[in-house]
Amino acid sequence: MLTFLPRKVLEEKIRKFLEEDLGQGDITTLVTVPSGTIVEAEIVAKESGVLAGIEEAVTMLESFGFHVRVLVPDGSRVEKKTVILKMVGDARTLLSIERTLLNLLTRMSGIATTTSRLVEKIHGAGYETKIACTRKVAPGLLFFDKKAVMLGGGDTHRLHLDDLIIVKDNHLAIVGDVGEALKRVKEAVSFSKRIEIEVSTGNKAVKAAEAGADIVLLDNFSTQEIENAIMLLDNVGLRSNVLIEASGGINEQNILEFAATGVDILSLGEITNSTRPLDMSLEVTKVLESSTKKA
Amino acid sequence: MLTFLPRKVLEEKIRKFLEEDLGQGDITTLVTVPSGTIVEAEIVAKESGVLAGIEEAVTMLESFGFHVRVLVPDGSRVEKKTVILKMVGDARTLLSIERTLLNLLTRMSGIATTTSRLVEKIHGAGYETKIACTRKVAPGLLFFDKKAVMLGGGDTHRLHLDDLIIVKDNHLAIVGDVGEALKRVKEAVSFSKRIEIEVSTGNKAVKAAEAGADIVLLDNFSTQEIENAIMLLDNVGLRSNVLIEASGGINEQNILEFAATGVDILSLGEITNSTRPLDMSLEVTKVLESSTKKA
Amino acid sequence: MLTFLPRKVLEEKIRKFLEEDLGQGDITTLVTVPSGTIVEAEIVAKESGVLAGIEEAVTMLESFGFHVRVLVPDGSRVEKKTVILKMVGDARTLLSIERTLLNLLTRMSGIATTTSRLVEKIHGAGYETKIACTRKVAPGLLFFDKKAVMLGGGDTHRLHLDDLIIVKDNHLAIVGDVGEALKRVKEAVSFSKRIEIEVSTGNKAVKAAEAGADIVLLDNFSTQEIENAIMLLDNVGLRSNVLIEASGGINEQNILEFAATGVDILSLGEITNSTRPLDMSLEVTKVLESSTKKA
Amino acid sequence: MLTFLPRKVLEEKIRKFLEEDLGQGDITTLVTVPSGTIVEAEIVAKESGVLAGIEEAVTMLESFGFHVRVLVPDGSRVEKKTVILKMVGDARTLLSIERTLLNLLTRMSGIATTTSRLVEKIHGAGYETKIACTRKVAPGLLFFDKKAVMLGGGDTHRLHLDDLIIVKDNHLAIVGDVGEALKRVKEAVSFSKRIEIEVSTGNKAVKAAEAGADIVLLDNFSTQEIENAIMLLDNVGLRSNVLIEASGGINEQNILEFAATGVDILSLGEITNSTRPLDMSLEVTKVLESSTKKA
Amino acid sequence: MLTFLPRKVLEEKIRKFLEEDLGQGDITTLVTVPSGTIVEAEIVAKESGVLAGIEEAVTMLESFGFHVRVLVPDGSRVEKKTVILKMVGDARTLLSIERTLLNLLTRMSGIATTTSRLVEKIHGAGYETKIACTRKVAPGLLFFDKKAVMLGGGDTHRLHLDDLIIVKDNHLAIVGDVGEALKRVKEAVSFSKRIEIEVSTGNKAVKAAEAGADIVLLDNFSTQEIENAIMLLDNVGLRSNVLIEASGGINEQNILEFAATGVDILSLGEITNSTRPLDMSLEVTKVLESSTKKA
Amino acid sequence: MLTFLPRKVLEEKIRKFLEEDLGQGDITTLVTVPSGTIVEAEIVAKESGVLAGIEEAVTMLESFGFHVRVLVPDGSRVEKKTVILKMVGDARTLLSIERTLLNLLTRMSGIATTTSRLVEKIHGAGYETKIACTRKVAPGLLFFDKKAVMLGGGDTHRLHLDDLIIVKDNHLAIVGDVGEALKRVKEAVSFSKRIEIEVSTGNKAVKAAEAGADIVLLDNFSTQEIENAIMLLDNVGLRSNVLIEASGGINEQNILEFAATGVDILSLGEITNSTRPLDMSLEVTKVLESSTKKA
Repeated sequence: MLTFLPRKVLEEKIRKFLEEDLGQGDITTLVTVPSGTIVEAEIVAKESGVLAGIEEAVTMLESFGFHVRVLVPDGSRVEKKTVILKMVGDARTLLSIERTLLNLLTRMSGIATTTSRLVEKIHGAGYETKIACTRKVAPGLLFFDKKAVMLGGGDTHRLHLDDLIIVKDNHLAIVGDVGEALKRVKEAVSFSKRIEIEVSTGNKAVKAAEAGADIVLLDNFSTQEIENAIMLLDNVGLRSNVLIEASGGINEQNILEFAATGVDILSLGEITNSTRPLDMSLEVTKVLESSTKKA
Repeated sequence: MLTFLPRKVLEEKIRKFLEEDLGQGDITTLVTVPSGTIVEAEIVAKESGVLAGIEEAVTMLESFGFHVRVLVPDGSRVEKKTVILKMVGDARTLLSIERTLLNLLTRMSGIATTTSRLVEKIHGAGYETKIACTRKVAPGLLFFDKKAVMLGGGDTHRLHLDDLIIVKDNHLAIVGDVGEALKRVKEAVSFSKRIEIEVSTGNKAVKAAEAGADIVLLDNFSTQEIENAIMLLDNVGLRSNVLIEASGGINEQNILEFAATGVDILSLGEITNSTRPLDMSLEVTKVLESSTKKA
Repeated sequence: MLTFLPRKVLEEKIRKFLEEDLGQGDITTLVTVPSGTIVEAEIVAKESGVLAGIEEAVTMLESFGFHVRVLVPDGSRVEKKTVILKMVGDARTLLSIERTLLNLLTRMSGIATTTSRLVEKIHGAGYETKIACTRKVAPGLLFFDKKAVMLGGGDTHRLHLDDLIIVKDNHLAIVGDVGEALKRVKEAVSFSKRIEIEVSTGNKAVKAAEAGADIVLLDNFSTQEIENAIMLLDNVGLRSNVLIEASGGINEQNILEFAATGVDILSLGEITNSTRPLDMSLEVTKVLESSTKKA
Repeated sequence: MLTFLPRKVLEEKIRKFLEEDLGQGDITTLVTVPSGTIVEAEIVAKESGVLAGIEEAVTMLESFGFHVRVLVPDGSRVEKKTVILKMVGDARTLLSIERTLLNLLTRMSGIATTTSRLVEKIHGAGYETKIACTRKVAPGLLFFDKKAVMLGGGDTHRLHLDDLIIVKDNHLAIVGDVGEALKRVKEAVSFSKRIEIEVSTGNKAVKAAEAGADIVLLDNFSTQEIENAIMLLDNVGLRSNVLIEASGGINEQNILEFAATGVDILSLGEITNSTRPLDMSLEVTKVLESSTKKA
Repeated sequence: MLTFLPRKVLEEKIRKFLEEDLGQGDITTLVTVPSGTIVEAEIVAKESGVLAGIEEAVTMLESFGFHVRVLVPDGSRVEKKTVILKMVGDARTLLSIERTLLNLLTRMSGIATTTSRLVEKIHGAGYETKIACTRKVAPGLLFFDKKAVMLGGGDTHRLHLDDLIIVKDNHLAIVGDVGEALKRVKEAVSFSKRIEIEVSTGNKAVKAAEAGADIVLLDNFSTQEIENAIMLLDNVGLRSNVLIEASGGINEQNILEFAATGVDILSLGEITNSTRPLDMSLEVTKVLESSTKKA
Repeated sequence: MLTFLPRKVLEEKIRKFLEEDLGQGDITTLVTVPSGTIVEAEIVAKESGVLAGIEEAVTMLESFGFHVRVLVPDGSRVEKKTVILKMVGDARTLLSIERTLLNLLTRMSGIATTTSRLVEKIHGAGYETKIACTRKVAPGLLFFDKKAVMLGGGDTHRLHLDDLIIVKDNHLAIVGDVGEALKRVKEAVSFSKRIEIEVSTGNKAVKAAEAGADIVLLDNFSTQEIENAIMLLDNVGLRSNVLIEASGGINEQNILEFAATGVDILSLGEITNSTRPLDMSLEVTKVLESSTKKA
């Protein structure tokens, strides 16, 4: 069931989210719901989309003592009104974790749904361009946001700052020069790293390819500027030496125009920082009143 | 400078966000930027909006050794292309915290901007209805999302589960009855708590008011159903005894229609869970090369 | 079994207490008790009182692998020499957690016992005055101390600083005036909060009620001053608009005199900060020597 | 300034206490006290006693940006109405940390005061008996409670379970025999440890001394039983080989009778688990209104 | 199975080690191994030695859901090519924890093996000198390194700074004098502590014994200087009053010469800070392919 | 000064190491060294080597209030008896952090020294082979061990499991086949990752290169087997398409023979798991006695 992390490690991440919401405890539930009440409940999709966060929901529920049945797994498409997950367990516990559970599940599914829609648009038009997210995530949710992108069929791009080398505009503002920057990187960095560099003109893209970059990032290029940069790389025979990533100003409306330029990767911050959750609800379907109250 | 929390406590929350993004360290910056380089930099608004997260940005930067000057404070409107914040300090540190800094600041400002736009729409139309957020936040960001709502002029609603009592549909699915639920709450809960209850019909709203609820939540009522519920409360002379909150299906388009019903509070999950960040960039404006490199 | 918090969250709080006492490990137990020894043990009350901390004891023991049977539940009265809890499990583990287990259980039961005695004294004399604790707790034990008060039949008062608004003397020393303070609060605070203000004279109590306070705190008033303040509120017809809390100088001896004044709430710091534990002992009743020692 | 721990380590312990009380922030202070207000304040003793927790108060205040002046240091006697500490700093921060600050300081001073009174009683009567605390502390406060005992002139006894070996009744219930227990300990334990064993009769005390215990604990012995045990040890010439500790049933009233038996150490759980705080108040003495500074 | 710490506490220590290695997840395993694959695996010794860390391995594996069988327990000698541990469980989880598991187990076994070899050398030559480690450990591994020493038959010496009093050269550089230092210690320290002092000459050893030290540490003495110091102590009749520890310059080659001097304890930093792991491998022995289960 | 991580983040890692060693506090220092004593001290190399951990030492010391002067920086060669670092500050604090400080600094310098010696041996013989470490580190020290390798001139290899893809023997035991494994990886993994695969024969190395691996790992190959594998790759024209890494059985004695085979990278677990610390001492050089300052 592990997708990225062993369960015990995932549990700990989720418990921390919950603790903030609980504060000193769910007073409402304490004073209304009798101790020992057992309920059956289900999570229902209120709109269609692609699921992510199911592993998180299961991990959270099972670690709090629930029996869980998954009806629609991570990465699958769910239709409106479909039951996704069924659970049985302690009523008080369920009501006190419900909001955190749904917040994570609906956010991750929202990200997976957007990603999937973009990927299908690209593939439907016959392109093989990769759709990637960036590090523009909600603070603290880097892991979950990236995982949702993967489940939606997108590319996770670099997972955090110790991953892939990316020399960006602010590095160049200090180093001064694409060639110098790549020289420093090549000398100092482990063989295990790919190297990407952000360039502002087609000529700099050529310079980057010559200096041995693995990936060239064309940031805020128009589609025409991208085509021009690719042509320049072709002219010097270096097009196949590098992957080309475009970012900046790309959105769902114009994405096919960008794909048509022939770039390898399109990255969009909005996949993870302008999310809309996939609407779901958690409904108690049966109350199994306990007779024997305990401490 | 404290808005909600003493600085030292806020620092700790922010440091944890940063640690996830850093992983084993910012390798790119390490291998490109010389140790000891000092830079001047600024954060610039790339669109207009209302700021939140400035205290967080200052706290983060100062706790990492930067000198900071705030040009536009929290809660203020900022125009496109305006410089918000200037900072001077260690280049390597700046580049390794840049993304986390912007992720928090742009998210919080996005929430404040949306909140402010809704509040102004209501006030501009002459209503005094409160605009409130919910607990539908990004997991782990309850504190920051709520604070941004407050800076945007909205109502923070309950801060977490130990706050205000809210008896919701799933509690009632177990308890069975508005009257019984309120009876239990009244007996058990501290005098320090307000009590809110979610109802599904106008008649239940009356019943809730009779049973001594402080606030009645009309969830997923049409505007006509809301008006009807208020009329029923008026008829029995209990309108002024309770605050009325409406939620469900309210958005920027129809919000004036809901305000026109005469409810006291409109709450919208989308303020905090369908955020769009306020676009900003961090730009290095001057490089002060250090001569004396240290460890 | 959840009273305030889901078990997994409670476990973590308790584990931290234990870690301080364990240090690098229970060396005595390690060198005297053979690995794999299983014991039966019981916790016995050495004096009569009201129990709190049973949920914590069970959570702790079960999370460390013990089978537990509760004979007297949380909130119940226990008589001297009664067995409260029986457990079976690993001897080494039991001896290394025994002290922390008893420290929490006896402290919480001590608080519940004191609270209960005060509440019964009030009720026995025919008053309905609420007995409340304050935030004067042992540092780090806010959650457990408040929970024990609730189990003893007391009012938990505000759970922490983000709860109920209480404008106190030091706020007024800065703001200057009851009216101005309440004006600021009313403008800025969420509808979800009750508002309390501390006053130093009967006239200020009237002013506070006029300005819309929900609760007025008469701090360090004599019983005669309290009666006078209530009379002043009655005179202007505002007595029923506010709850009246008295604090300062109230103790078990004089509490009935304070209740006789007609205040709604009596709060006493000593419930939680001058605790006397309810004496108990943990006794090993049977040793089931293991045959097959393992790592 | 370090008494037990370097300041940075102490800061972290204290910050955790504060976080529980703060929750999502001090809303009252936020909505009443203007940002940027600076105040002078002082902590005043409301009764006489011996101070402990001053280092903690200073560490807390300085780490939150206050300037602090200590007028009466840790371990000193303070008279009623004396100013103990003066501080200048941010008003909002001060009001939000006030309660936690006082809770720690008054608890520690309460423990030091009780300890000191017992010690003086013993010394005043011409005895040299050591007064020791036990591990019966408030959970999570082992460090602070022990430190307060030391400042009050008491003996801290073992600091946690990895310290001094103490074979207690429950160990013996498993091992079966004083001699066997000590044999196991002697074989297995580091040369760096002292060894103590609890005995239930004078004869066992002799056996323990013969088996090489460093300290013999007479638990729940009457004064006569203690005298008898000492006589038995004298008879076999082992009195000077061991320290004798008595515990159980010792209190402020009967402590001189126990001291008169000639034991070396008297240990009392109630020093740390039946604490009464030393009453103090924090008073704002001057408000230095800020102009309009914001974050 | 507890050796030093209850399992739940040990789990937490181990989980933290794992989290660093996992980062954002084991991407390789995720993309190669199908979800739901179950494997059998075993840990095999690739050289002979003494085992430590088996409890840690079992705790780690069981807490991650594996069934485990221990074939060779902690503290036992293992021969090359012997299977130590068998496990069955989730393949993805196993591959993602494998390295951390082996790093801890092989380090601890390496330390136990070295310790055991030294102890046997001493005992084989007919000496009873204790072999002790120091606090020269890998940072963060104090607990595990000391435990491994104990399993190898060595003495754990002081477990951390709150343990045994050891007055060292840098204390004396401040205090100035062996006698003065011991006077201060005797006055201030709990009866529960043993007292050791580092001396630089035989005469100071005598002075220390006279002043009541329990243990005298001869640091960086030649074997002849040690013999001389012992003779001086003998001359004044204090040899049996103190334990004598020697440290500095002692290694596997010369250890018998040091033992021959008649010291009680030989302590060597290199046992824990110049470790060589005991080589082992974890081998997947059987793959039980799952059908198509997903989260 | 940042090498890998911003200082505030590094401080937190180091504080945790310290807390384990401190336990409930440095009792020895407390009872011997007067409060307020200020000392000058220095760290001196007791043997020659290459330094790492200086940034950690400075971060630790400065965060505990010391003034520090670095005489020999990270990555430099130090000769025996050279003063590396001077510091001035609180004596009690210094003595309580001394051991943890030295444990980290001497371990990191030991790793840097070994790495540097291997690198120089290779370069001195005219080879350009990279010397890399592995993930065989002390648990919890992945960050520090890798950083020390980098300062010694080595390659850090993958920083943790989310870095570089490495398909190892146990993955292949499940997947079954080099080609199938690489196919799965290519389909699923981000463009940002390099891909390495472990092979057991020369033919599989060819297959891996054909399937698009970036790096081929020859594990436990003899030098002759390596040469053979390279020849096979040459034969099919794929030698320049892949980097070749060899591991297993490589040590300081035979490393030149392995370099002579023409592999690109040699990786050795023993760099980080068979460390020998670089010997240093911390010496108090001057005591600046305080008057009578207390907390």
